Amino acid sequence: MGEIIKGKPVADKMTDDLTAEVAALNAKGITPKLTIVRVGARPDDLAYEKGALSKCQKVGLATEVKELPLDITQDDFIAELRKINNDSNVHGILIFRPLPKQLSEEVIKYEIAPEKDIDCFSPVNAAKLLEGDKSGFPPCTPTAVIEILKYYNVPMEGKKAVVLGRSMVVGKPATLLLLNENATVTICHSRTKDLPKVVSEADIVVAGIGKAKMVKADFIKEGAVVMDVGINLDENGNLCGDVDTEACVEKASLITPVPGGVGSVTTSILAKHVIKACKALNNL
Amino acid sequence: MGEIIKGKPVADKMTDDLTAEVAALNAKGITPKLTIVRVGARPDDLAYEKGALSKCQKVGLATEVKELPLDITQDDFIAELRKINNDSNVHGILIFRPLPKQLSEEVIKYEIAPEKDIDCFSPVNAAKLLEGDKSGFPPCTPTAVIEILKYYNVPMEGKKAVVLGRSMVVGKPATLLLLNENATVTICHSRTKDLPKVVSEADIVVAGIGKAKMVKADFIKEGAVVMDVGINLDENGNLCGDVDTEACVEKASLITPVPGGVGSVTTSILAKHVIKACKALNNL
Repeated sequence: MGEIIKGKPVADKMTDDLTAEVAALNAKGITPKLTIVRVGARPDDLAYEKGALSKCQKVGLATEVKELPLDITQDDFIAELRKINNDSNVHGILIFRPLPKQLSEEVIKYEIAPEKDIDCFSPVNAAKLLEGDKSGFPPCTPTAVIEILKYYNVPMEGKKAVVLGRSMVVGKPATLLLLNENATVTICHSRTKDLPKVVSEADIVVAGIGKAKMVKADFIKEGAVVMDVGINLDENGNLCGDVDTEACVEKASLITPVPGGVGSVTTSILAKHVIKACKALNNL
Repeated sequence: MGEIIKGKPVADKMTDDLTAEVAALNAKGITPKLTIVRVGARPDDLAYEKGALSKCQKVGLATEVKELPLDITQDDFIAELRKINNDSNVHGILIFRPLPKQLSEEVIKYEIAPEKDIDCFSPVNAAKLLEGDKSGFPPCTPTAVIEILKYYNVPMEGKKAVVLGRSMVVGKPATLLLLNENATVTICHSRTKDLPKVVSEADIVVAGIGKAKMVKADFIKEGAVVMDVGINLDENGNLCGDVDTEACVEKASLITPVPGGVGSVTTSILAKHVIKACKALNNL
């Protein structure tokens, strides 16, 4: 019988550390600032925004939300973004995606200043992620996975990690971040054959495939560590992850719940990235 | 007992196809051109250059070599590169690396025009590789691996592939390219525990770890396909790969030799990428 490990103690520890870092910057006359760019008012975006603002304010960051009209043209959007890029008071920029159809993410991703792009929208940060260049900003969610593993002293070097899913926001970056930690990583997806067997060889499982409770007990090796990055609704409309937590906790050593697991650390990573960007921009 | 599969038939087929493509472009008044930028005259570079020029000329490409002095300053190098970027007659640029110490690859990689960067030096192409965006140019060597697998009708979808090595020129891009083909990919490296066992589960092995003949028969599953990307010298000073070919061919179904395997397809990929770049630059 394993232990369900929450994100909260990780987030709390980070809050303490980041608050101290911001205080040290304040003492130098610097206040790190996050600007959120939101087009329209999608409920998902508003929910994440609320959590992000609350976390950032708690650690002492300045914040601003730039709400843009749903029908904004691409030229106007880019003009707004360039203003924020050029504003020396802003250190981190988060753009909610997906953007409405008239805005081309393929074009706009080249416009965001890479040094302020704290959630890996810019190709510059995607390339740094691939290269293992730690000066960049990998996406917040898989970074939270690594942060939790480190907090709970889970060894990664030489361990077998299996990542379920190959998205740009979870699967691929999680694979590369685990590789940076010297894990031996297998990346699985919808075309993987005999998925339960492949996953059952893992010391560390990262599930980000987007299917409610699809990871069952037979996927899990005795003593494995399971990180659930899924956010789904179950048949009763309740929030759940990609992992059948109740079934898998019987075999796992550590397992993150949904909600209250990886997701509750993501905004702390966001705040950490704003501070990192601020320091780099100030040559600190 | 398996079959040793050479790169030559793959390269020959590609030569035929590319020659026809160039002829079609010529008919439109377009001649694709490769410019090689070489600093100094390292024997390795000269050897590769000779092969690359010969292949490109064979399929009808225009070629040019810009040889720059070993002590060129970064500013002068960048000025030369910008001239080539801006030369509308040039469609593909290959810069030999590593560059001498006074030249920062970290700076220069942002200078090469991504649309002419046919061997994945630019972060834009690294990001496209990570995203699975096929408009980019992945590195030539791992692309040659995929080309050979396709030529010999090796199924990749749903197969277990194991990549040895995590370099930016072989291991990481090979992983992503195999993932694009819907293989389930495991990436191994110097810290991987029980390497022979991990590799022996693979249907497809790609060895790019840079250790002479380190892959032995006990690494190979009966019937596996083995792609040897290593280029090393054995104890007698002879060229050899990462795979002990003689021992492994007993168990593998197909195995590429060194020399005469993957390396002999790389320049064909280079030529293919020049043509692809030329077509894109001409909106064809």
